Amino acid sequence: MAENKKMVEDITSRDVDFAKWYTDVVKKAEMVDYASTKGCMIIRPYGYAIWENIQKILDGKFKELGHENVMMPMFIPESLLQKEKDHVEGFAPEVAWVTHGGEEKLGERLCVRPTSETLFCDHYKDIIHSHRDLPKLYNQWCSVVRWEKTTRPFLRTTEFLWQEGHTMHETAEEAMAETEQMLNVYADFCEQYLAIPVVRGKKTDKEKFAGAEATYTIEAMMHDGKALQSGTSHYFGDGFSRAFGIQYSDRENKLQYPHQTSWGMSTRIIGAIIMTHGDDNGLVLPPAVAPIQVIIVPIAAHKGGVNEKAQEIEQRIKKVCRVKTDVSNQSPGWKFAEYEMKGVPLRLEIGPRDIENNSCVLVRRDNGEKTVVSLDNIEAEIEAKLKAVHDGMFESALKRREQMTYDVHTMDEMIDTAENKPGLVRAMWCGDPECEAAVKEKAGLTSRCMPFAQEEIDGKCVCCGKPAKTLVYWGKQY
Amino acid sequence: MAENKKMVEDITSRDVDFAKWYTDVVKKAEMVDYASTKGCMIIRPYGYAIWENIQKILDGKFKELGHENVMMPMFIPESLLQKEKDHVEGFAPEVAWVTHGGEEKLGERLCVRPTSETLFCDHYKDIIHSHRDLPKLYNQWCSVVRWEKTTRPFLRTTEFLWQEGHTMHETAEEAMAETEQMLNVYADFCEQYLAIPVVRGKKTDKEKFAGAEATYTIEAMMHDGKALQSGTSHYFGDGFSRAFGIQYSDRENKLQYPHQTSWGMSTRIIGAIIMTHGDDNGLVLPPAVAPIQVIIVPIAAHKGGVNEKAQEIEQRIKKVCRVKTDVSNQSPGWKFAEYEMKGVPLRLEIGPRDIENNSCVLVRRDNGEKTVVSLDNIEAEIEAKLKAVHDGMFESALKRREQMTYDVHTMDEMIDTAENKPGLVRAMWCGDPECEAAVKEKAGLTSRCMPFAQEEIDGKCVCCGKPAKTLVYWGKQY
Repeated sequence: MAENKKMVEDITSRDVDFAKWYTDVVKKAEMVDYASTKGCMIIRPYGYAIWENIQKILDGKFKELGHENVMMPMFIPESLLQKEKDHVEGFAPEVAWVTHGGEEKLGERLCVRPTSETLFCDHYKDIIHSHRDLPKLYNQWCSVVRWEKTTRPFLRTTEFLWQEGHTMHETAEEAMAETEQMLNVYADFCEQYLAIPVVRGKKTDKEKFAGAEATYTIEAMMHDGKALQSGTSHYFGDGFSRAFGIQYSDRENKLQYPHQTSWGMSTRIIGAIIMTHGDDNGLVLPPAVAPIQVIIVPIAAHKGGVNEKAQEIEQRIKKVCRVKTDVSNQSPGWKFAEYEMKGVPLRLEIGPRDIENNSCVLVRRDNGEKTVVSLDNIEAEIEAKLKAVHDGMFESALKRREQMTYDVHTMDEMIDTAENKPGLVRAMWCGDPECEAAVKEKAGLTSRCMPFAQEEIDGKCVCCGKPAKTLVYWGKQY
Repeated sequence: MAENKKMVEDITSRDVDFAKWYTDVVKKAEMVDYASTKGCMIIRPYGYAIWENIQKILDGKFKELGHENVMMPMFIPESLLQKEKDHVEGFAPEVAWVTHGGEEKLGERLCVRPTSETLFCDHYKDIIHSHRDLPKLYNQWCSVVRWEKTTRPFLRTTEFLWQEGHTMHETAEEAMAETEQMLNVYADFCEQYLAIPVVRGKKTDKEKFAGAEATYTIEAMMHDGKALQSGTSHYFGDGFSRAFGIQYSDRENKLQYPHQTSWGMSTRIIGAIIMTHGDDNGLVLPPAVAPIQVIIVPIAAHKGGVNEKAQEIEQRIKKVCRVKTDVSNQSPGWKFAEYEMKGVPLRLEIGPRDIENNSCVLVRRDNGEKTVVSLDNIEAEIEAKLKAVHDGMFESALKRREQMTYDVHTMDEMIDTAENKPGLVRAMWCGDPECEAAVKEKAGLTSRCMPFAQEEIDGKCVCCGKPAKTLVYWGKQY
C-alpha cells in the first residue's frame, strides 16, 4: 500500500495529454512496470489478473469449439523460418537471434518466435497424412518477441503474451469458415465481456499478415479517436502446406494440400480496455475481467459492528462476484480514490446508519451513479448492477464511436477530417494500392479494414474518382 | 487416429530397456514429438492437457496461500545475471545468448532466462521500501531455457515449462517457513494427486541451487530404481537482497535487507508420472490429472441401442468425471489397447447383455480389476472406483519404493548395492564433502537428500567411519 499514496492528482488529464495519461494510469494502477531489459515490460499482479480472466474466458470458448492446446518450442531455426518467402520477409527484420548456447557458437542461428506458423507447419508435416487426421485445431498460450524501437506498455513491447491458434482443414471452404468463426469469437468477446464495440472486417492486401491470403480484423476506437487492431484471424490457403510439404490422402485416396488458418489475441487488448474506458480518475474495468468486481468500504468503522457487517456482506456476495473488503485504517476518501484508480466496477459503502436501515450504498465506477439498496436481496442487486455497469460502458463506448466516425467523399474532406476531427473515417475505395498509399501520404490515415457490413456511401473512390469497389474504415493507428 | 494403428506390440518392454520403453511410451501415447529445434520438444494435446490439469491444481493452492501471478521478461541482460556471483557461475555455462535484434548487433548480450531470481530482484528493488510492502508472494508460469547436450522428453530438454515462485519476507524465520511450506505443497501434491510417494529433505551444500543458502527437495523413485528430483524450494537468506540493494524500513524505521525464497515445479513431473506408474501396455495416469478419466467402450455396437445407452451414461457421469465415449468403428479390442496405452484410469464397457441387466463393466487400468456394477448409482460407483485407482497406484508405488530402498553401513555394502540392486540407498554421513565425493566416485551414487524424517541407522559415516551427523538418501539420478 505504501506505493499507493500518490493518488489521482498525479494522473495527467486524459484530454491534456492522452499518451501521458495512459502511461500514468498503467503505472499508478500497478498494472505494469518497466524492466531492465530494454523494450520489455513486467506485468504486475493487478495487470496479470486481468490477463488471467481474459485467458480463462477465451480458452473456454476455444475448447468448446474443439480446439486443443499444445506447446511449441520458442526457438525457430533460421532455415525453418525461411521456408515461406513472404513470411520470412515480413518477420526477419524484427526478430531476436540466439547465436550462442553456453560458451559455444551455434551452427545455425535460432530466432525467438515472433509467431509460430513455421513451427506448427513443421509439426503438421509429421502428423497429417490422411483426411482422418483433419481438421487439426491447435492453439497455444505463450509469449512472442518482435524487436521494437519505440515501446509502450501493452500496446507495443518487444515481448508480449498472446494466444495463437493454428488450424489445418481439408478444404478451402472449411478453413475460411474457421477464419471467420474465430474472428467472430474475438469480436463477441470484446463486445460481450470487455464492453468494447468493434468493427469486423477484412484487411487490404497491403495491411495483411505476412504470408496470408486474407487477414480479418476487429478494429476498436480508443478515447482519443485512434484505432486499435484488437484481434486478427488469417486464411493461408495452401501456401504453407506447399512450402512445408504437408499432404494428406483425401476421401478418394488422392494426395491433397490442406488449408490453413491462424488467429491471435494478445495482451495488447488490455491497452484497448484502458484506452476505451479509462478516465481522469484512472482505470474503468469491465466487470467480466476486473480482478475485483466489488470493493466494500466500511464507513465510520470505529463504531462497533461496521467491519463485522462488511465482512458478513462479503461472505454473502462472494458467491456471485469477486469481492474484497478494505478494512485498513486509511480514510474512506482515500479508499474511494484508490479503487476508482484501480477501476473497480462497483463500490459498496456500509456505515452505522446503513446498518440501522438494513441497506447499503452502491456506487458505479463508470458513471458515478449512487443507489441505496436493501441488504435483503444484496446478491441479486450486485448481479444486476454489474450487468448495468457493463451495458453502460458498452453503450457509452458505442455512442462515442458513432459520434466520432465521419463519412467523407473527397480527398479534401478526408484531409480536413484527419486534421481536425479525431476518430474513424469512412470512405469508398477503388481497390488500387496507389490510392491507399495516397490517402496515407496526404491525410496520414491507414486503411483499418473493409467492413463485413458494407454500405455504398458513394459511387466513386475517395482518391481517384474511379468507380468504387468497397467501403473502407480509415484511421490513425496504435 | 491414423497414427494410432501402431499399438502395444511397438512398445519395448519396460524390463528389457527402460529408457527405450520410456521414449516409446511418450511418442506412442502422443504426449510429445521432437521439434526441428535441437533439444526442444513439442508437447502435444494429450501431454499438454496433463500439464493444464497440474497447473490448475497447483495454481489454486498457490493462490489459496496468498500468492499472485506476474509476468517477467524472458530476457536477462548479461550485467543483471552477473550481480550475484554464485548464481551466475551456476547458470552462465548453460544459457542461450541473444546477440542480435533484427539486423543490429546488441550493445549488451541478453540471455534467455534459465530461472528468474535476478529479474524478480531487479523488480523488488523498485517496489519494496517498507515493511508494509512485505511479504511479496509472486509466482509465474513460463518456459525457461538451459542449454543441454543430451535431452529426453520431459526429463531434460533445452526448453521446458515450469512455475517459479519468488517471495520476499521481513525475517529469516518467515522466509524459512515459506520455503518449507512450499516444499510441503509440492510433496502433498505429488502424493495426493499424482499418487507418487516422495522423500522430503534437504540437499547437501554440493547439490544445492546456485546462490541459495539451503535447497529443499522432494525425491521420487522411478520404476527402474533411479531417483527423480521432482520439485525444489530454496532459501536465499539476504544474499540477493544485498547484491541488488533491496532494502526496507522495518517497524522501528531501520533499514533492513529482506529474506528471499524461490520454488519451482516443471513439466519434468510428467516424466515422473510416466516412470512411476507406466507398464508394458503404456501409460497409467493418476485420475486427478488424466485428460480422460473414464473411457466408455460400446460392445456389439451394431446392435440397436448400445451407442445410445453409452451416450446416455456419458451424459450422467460427466458431472463427476472427465469422460469420453469412443463410438468409432474400430473393434472393442483395438479400443481397449488404445486407451490402455493412453493410461485412461477407468474403462466402462456397455453391451446388449449389460443393458438387459441394467449394469455395466468397470475395468481399472492400474491392476486390471473388472467389476460389474449397477447403472442405478453409476455416478457414485465411478467416483469410488477413481479413488480406488488413485489409492491403489499410490500404495503400489510406495510398496515398490520400500522394497527397493536399502540401508547400508559400509562402503563395500554401498558399492555392492549400487551395482546389484536398483533403488535408493540409505546411509549415514559425517557431513564432509570429501566423503560425499568418494561415494559418487566409488559407488556412482549422488546424495539425493538429507530427509526431514531422520533416523540414526548407524553411529558412523559410511565412508570415513567418523561420527555421523545425518542420514542421507543416495541414488542414481535422472
